Amino acid sequence: FLLSELDELFPADISSILYELEGAKAHQLFTLLDTEKGAEVLSNIESDDRKKFIKEQFTVEEIAKYVNLFDSDDAVDLLNEQPIEVREKVIALLEDREQARFILDLLHYPEDVAGGLMQKELVKVFTNQTVSECVEEIRLQAENVDKVYAVYVVDSEQKLKGIVSLKQIVLARKNTKIENILEDEIVFVDTTQSGDEVAQIMQKYDLEAIPVVNSLGRLLGVITIDDVIDFITEKAEEDIQVMAGITGEAEEDDSVWHLAKARIPWLVVGVFGSLLAASVIRQFEDTLARVSALAMFIPIMGSTGGNVGIQTSSLIVQSLAEKSGISIGLWERLSKVIRVALINGLVVGVVTGIYVYAIGEPELFWVVCTSLFAVVILASFMGTITPLILDKIGINPAMASGPFITTANDLIGIGTYFLIAYYLLSLN
Amino acid sequence: FLLSELDELFPADISSILYELEGAKAHQLFTLLDTEKGAEVLSNIESDDRKKFIKEQFTVEEIAKYVNLFDSDDAVDLLNEQPIEVREKVIALLEDREQARFILDLLHYPEDVAGGLMQKELVKVFTNQTVSECVEEIRLQAENVDKVYAVYVVDSEQKLKGIVSLKQIVLARKNTKIENILEDEIVFVDTTQSGDEVAQIMQKYDLEAIPVVNSLGRLLGVITIDDVIDFITEKAEEDIQVMAGITGEAEEDDSVWHLAKARIPWLVVGVFGSLLAASVIRQFEDTLARVSALAMFIPIMGSTGGNVGIQTSSLIVQSLAEKSGISIGLWERLSKVIRVALINGLVVGVVTGIYVYAIGEPELFWVVCTSLFAVVILASFMGTITPLILDKIGINPAMASGPFITTANDLIGIGTYFLIAYYLLSLN
Ligand SMILES: [Mg+2]
Ligand SMILES: [Mg+2]
Ligand SMILES: [Mg+2]
Ligand SMILES: [Mg+2]
Ligand SMILES: [Mg+2]
Ligand SMILES: [Mg+2]
Ligand SMILES: [Mg+2]
Ligand SMILES: [Mg+2]
Ligand SMILES: [Mg+2]
Ligand SMILES: [Mg+2]
Ligand SMILES: [Mg+2]
Ligand SMILES: [Mg+2]
Ligand SMILES: [Mg+2]
Repeated sequence: FLLSELDELFPADISSILYELEGAKAHQLFTLLDTEKGAEVLSNIESDDRKKFIKEQFTVEEIAKYVNLFDSDDAVDLLNEQPIEVREKVIALLEDREQARFILDLLHYPEDVAGGLMQKELVKVFTNQTVSECVEEIRLQAENVDKVYAVYVVDSEQKLKGIVSLKQIVLARKNTKIENILEDEIVFVDTTQSGDEVAQIMQKYDLEAIPVVNSLGRLLGVITIDDVIDFITEKAEEDIQVMAGITGEAEEDDSVWHLAKARIPWLVVGVFGSLLAASVIRQFEDTLARVSALAMFIPIMGSTGGNVGIQTSSLIVQSLAEKSGISIGLWERLSKVIRVALINGLVVGVVTGIYVYAIGEPELFWVVCTSLFAVVILASFMGTITPLILDKIGINPAMASGPFITTANDLIGIGTYFLIAYYLLSLN
Repeated sequence: FLLSELDELFPADISSILYELEGAKAHQLFTLLDTEKGAEVLSNIESDDRKKFIKEQFTVEEIAKYVNLFDSDDAVDLLNEQPIEVREKVIALLEDREQARFILDLLHYPEDVAGGLMQKELVKVFTNQTVSECVEEIRLQAENVDKVYAVYVVDSEQKLKGIVSLKQIVLARKNTKIENILEDEIVFVDTTQSGDEVAQIMQKYDLEAIPVVNSLGRLLGVITIDDVIDFITEKAEEDIQVMAGITGEAEEDDSVWHLAKARIPWLVVGVFGSLLAASVIRQFEDTLARVSALAMFIPIMGSTGGNVGIQTSSLIVQSLAEKSGISIGLWERLSKVIRVALINGLVVGVVTGIYVYAIGEPELFWVVCTSLFAVVILASFMGTITPLILDKIGINPAMASGPFITTANDLIGIGTYFLIAYYLLSLN
């Protein structure tokens, strides 16, 4: 009935429609599409939704029918979501044996390195071919490679020699030799380079596609910008979740149980931190009993410590992520952070000092101001070294911008405060 | 001397080298480049560095010489960094009058909408032209449009009718009419659509370039993916800074003074919040004097409130940013958030309850557990409605994931705690 309308929609829009439907109905609608369109739609669905959809509704034969038409990178993404048995059955069932070979080539790369982002489909010519042979090559590959960004030029050993843009091919005369028009100053990446590096390189040089070579310089595949954008946005979302203290992936539309689970670990860490702080306060019970107004300033020590810590660490994390050129020395970094802390500590101290006088607790003036100043300096120090240490030991430094730094600084802030209070007040 | 080496480098790499040099030396090196390369390098330098570099080292004539060769979108970016007098002088000095017209067309769009992201340079053909005329058109434009993504097809009224990819042009026969090979189901945007929307559309449909039309459907320009990537990464950095409580743009390599200034506003907001909390505690001085162990649990109320608030709000903010299809109703949203809060409140309450017993303060058991449970529920509620309200009144909802929510929740947490303590303890 609405088949004709459906066929006129973009694959990405059909994917959006499928999200709204129950599994069985979605599958029914899906099978109405011709195989090629179905393959595009299926390659567009989000990983966790697709995993569920396929598990509930698809036979291995059906999976193979669609995966046969996927770009190799998307085929590997889909297969990586499946249990090993399904994966192997699907590969065995693929009609297109080149596709099967492509997939086997790609399956062993980790998801987040250049090898895991590349597709095998590309148009390749030799240096000694002519422009019209090149056009023939594009025609031959046209079915397999739906978007041609450029033509890659290799020598007889498959080593990457250069790139010819489609614009050059359009403008060149038919019998021109490829070696006369190829651009040989090109940017490429190795299969092992991280997705972050790939993204930064493509952004820096404004590339729509980047060739991937092995350690011998042989052309293995190409990474396209659409996949890099997906990688970048996923990373950005992950960083925010890490900062917010959410573990694993979570979205508002996940189940209540899934959401609760994603949030519990860092909440519990926060609780343990705060209970440690409670134990610290307990140690100073006598001081607190003597000067009960001390309790009033417990919140400011914790929250200022947390705020300063996060501000500092997030700047360091950002600067680590950019990795642009020269790295800054630890001492240079710390000295700058401390100078900023001196200014901010002064501002925070003065505002609070005025309040302490205003409420008529002058005997607490020096205790509160000194402590606050110390807390700002200590939190700045912590906010600097924590991400650096995490980065060094291979943990995502963004972790240091989240509840970890808040918890640590709450504790440090309160400990500092009571220590200073204890000594300053026992002087009187 | 090293001129020949310099000319072989990519413009983006020369920009990187310039960052390392003092202004005058950088300018000296810069003038060694031929004008075309110089223009590319200049269009690659980061906004604030370029502003300073140009202000200190360039005459308006020099600026005009380079801007003359810029893509129109980059030209507008550079001019927007300059004072109005400089801007007008440069435009008047441009040799390429088409470039001047392009710039005047683009200058009035805000930076972050489609109009502000587009370039005027594109290859345009009419429906009744042939493929070989199209190739001629590309040849004519080749100098002006360095990267050709596709050819845009318009009718006699300049209305966008379709797109022909370069691949189709390469494969089509020379005398084929454009109208027979154009793709007429195309995705385009209006000049007023937000950069976020443009980015989401290009990501969804995997586009390298998207045409921009006015309200009459007339083709005005094209947005290229490299500029959209810059937009996306800038936005992601901004969101993180907002979450970390840093105002304006700040980077580790900015001056001490700039960094301190970027951090002070939210620090001071945090201080005021904490001083309000101090005033609340002061109200309950008597209760606190009677049961001094109450002070021990001030930190856990503040930090749990803050953590829960940020976890909740960041999920809401993320979901708002995706805007995918159906919007969730407020009640559905709240009911889910509250169910998650019930689970998490229980976990947090039990862990803390055990501690309260273990340290031998059983009379505080109900006070602490009830308060903590209430704090988790309240913070979840706040974390849900704050971003929704901010979004409604046109403020970046990411604001709600930062120090604002921590400060508010610290205060709410501590207020709730003392209120509950006051009533429960006066029962005894
Ligand atoms: Mg992949
Ligand atoms: Mg294939
Ligand atoms: Mg770029
Ligand atoms: Mg993809
Ligand atoms: Mg792909
Ligand atoms: Mg999901
Ligand atoms: Mg712009
Ligand atoms: Mg121009
Ligand atoms: Mg995409
Ligand atoms: Mg541009
Ligand atoms: Mg650009
Ligand atoms: Mg800067
Ligand atoms: Mg806190």
